[in-house]
This record gives sequence, structure tokens and C-alpha cells, in this order.
Amino acid sequence: MSSNRDIDALIDMMAKLPGLGPRSARRAVLHLIRKRALLLTPLADLMQTVAATARECVTCGNVGTSDTCDICASPKRATGELCVVEDVADLWAMERSGVFKGRYHVLGGTLSALDAVGPEELRIPKLISRVTDESITEVILALNATVDGQTTAHYIADQLGADLRVTSLAQGVPIGGELDYLDDGTISAALRARKQV
Amino acid sequence: MSSNRDIDALIDMMAKLPGLGPRSARRAVLHLIRKRALLLTPLADLMQTVAATARECVTCGNVGTSDTCDICASPKRATGELCVVEDVADLWAMERSGVFKGRYHVLGGTLSALDAVGPEELRIPKLISRVTDESITEVILALNATVDGQTTAHYIADQLGADLRVTSLAQGVPIGGELDYLDDGTISAALRARKQV
Repeated sequence: MSSNRDIDALIDMMAKLPGLGPRSARRAVLHLIRKRALLLTPLADLMQTVAATARECVTCGNVGTSDTCDICASPKRATGELCVVEDVADLWAMERSGVFKGRYHVLGGTLSALDAVGPEELRIPKLISRVTDESITEVILALNATVDGQTTAHYIADQLGADLRVTSLAQGVPIGGELDYLDDGTISAALRARKQV
Repeated sequence: MSSNRDIDALIDMMAKLPGLGPRSARRAVLHLIRKRALLLTPLADLMQTVAATARECVTCGNVGTSDTCDICASPKRATGELCVVEDVADLWAMERSGVFKGRYHVLGGTLSALDAVGPEELRIPKLISRVTDESITEVILALNATVDGQTTAHYIADQLGADLRVTSLAQGVPIGGELDYLDDGTISAALRARKQV
């Protein structure tokens, strides 16, 4: 490619990131080299820092710089509500909305017979022990509205038992969504869950 | 986002790379953090190395790790042919095809009245001095088939004078291209430049 070993290695490595391919990795690396004092050196330094400090929260699975993440460490978040998400990215998406004030539990994926992912791979045992240890009153299953996500939600609801409030996110028309562009499944779900005005 | 300063800064920086946005930057950073020993640390090290060693070739504008790039330094490439490209990425694309055996000259863009890019911004004076200094016999204008690219090609051809062979890449149907998917301009160019079988 560039006939230079280090630059080629950097392009190969960048090309393996999710969302980037060989072509966009080449563009990104050329951009970084062009602005190496302004971009490449600070980016490398920041990556070193994050690589040295980032770790998973032992309680919820969120990514932060201490063994217990800021959310789990904050006494303000001990509301008795636990929001179960598939992924750290989903936790961050929930936090951006700024509405949920409780704590989180990151599963690390969904149950999948095809990929041989069982409850033990998913921090589900940890979730069940947290529910008793932290005197949780409501578990909100904020899993993706996919087949695997919903299967996982049903499994968790079964495991948690009946003496606990278990809820899931509402399904319906997204804010700003136009009916004409929505799939049939969303429209029928929104119709079934219709509310009196 | 992650409520962590360093991780947020890393996401912001990655989001500014061409081809990445906030969402793909978050995905990429989470992927890197998950595999920090395997990916993030080596990537940071490699970026440090490239930031310290990468520089532009003083002769052709290619990116490499010495003041004169491998292509300009190689005596085998002194064929008297000079291939003019807009960008380092274009040079690399030409090199991947493996057909051209001469040397390159990277313009660093195209002439553009709109963006106030004149010949001085484009290493065109350097090109003209190279043509005499390196006893060039043919200049191949491998510029993009865009309006700006073709304007620049015409300008350079005018500047180089008549005592030199100036050629440009052939225009026509790309290999594997289906006529039905090609634009009218390409088809008419291919028809005008038709060859006897």
C-alpha cells in the first residue's frame, strides 16, 4: 500500500475496527499523518492513557477507570431500580437520554443458541445475586427489540420470579417517526399498545 | 457519554476521523477497550512510531519515513516517466495496480476557483522544475475524472509545453462494469474512444 512497514501495519490495524474497512482506514491514516502533530500524537497519547486506566466495573460491567464505575459508586443512584442492557453502548445511550436515575447491569450480549451463548456467559447469575443483595424493587429490561433480545428478556423475567416488578421498554412509533417509513411490526405493536388520548 | 473524561475525549477525537461519526467512534472505542491488551496498546504504540517517523517526500510528496521516499530513492524507477496524482491515496492506488514503473508527483489537490486553490498551492511549480531536472520524457496525468481534476490536467498540459509527451488515463467502461449501471457520461466517453477489435 504505502510500501512502508509501520504505516501499512497502522492501516491494517485501523481497518479491523468496526465501521472501518481498508479504504476508509487508508483515508483516516493519511489524514492522521497529514496532521500528525495536531492529531496523531495526541490520539496515541490518549489511547495509551485509556489502555492503562480503562477497566470494567465489577458490579455492573460498565466501562470506566476504576473497579467500581461512577454510577455504581454514586449513592444518589441507589433508587432500587436496575436497568438491564445488552451492551455498554446501550448503557451510554440510556444515560444520554438522562431520564433513568437508577443503576445498570450490562449483560454483555444476548442468549443465542446459534452462537452457543448461555446464561453463564451473560452475567445473568450476577444479575440475580444483585437483585437480592441490593434490595432491588424493579428490574427494567432495556434489551434490543430483536428476536435474541426479546428471548433473553423472557428468560430473565422467568428467572427473577414473581415477587419483583419486571418491566420492559415500551414499543411503538419513535418520536419524529413517519408511519410510511416504519415497518409492519412496529406499526402493529404501536396499534396493540394504543393509549387513550 | 461514558461519564469518563479520557474515554469521552478519545471518542470525540476518533469521531473526527474521515469516515467515522460519533456513533461509529463509540463502537470503535468500546471495541478497543474490550481488547485493550490485544488492540489498544499496540495501536497506540504504532501511532507513536508513525507520528515520530512519518514525513512527506521532499521530491514527490508521497508519505514515508525518510525525506526521500522509497520510490524516488530507487534507481529502478528512473524511467523518465512521471505520473501526476492529486493525492497520496491516489499514488497508493496506482502502486497497488503494479503496472506503472516510473516515479510520481503528488499535487496535493486540484485547482479550484471556488476554494481559491491556485498553482502555487499545488506543487505545480515543483512539477515543472522536476520535468527538466530529471530529464522526463512523458508526464502521465492520472487525475480524477472530475471537473476540477480535468481542469487541473488541462492547466498542467498547457504549462508543460509541446516538446514533452503528456498523456492521461484512458476513460471508458471499468473492468467488470455493467452498461446498465454506468452513467451517460462514461458510456459516451467509452463510445467516442472505441477501439477496433
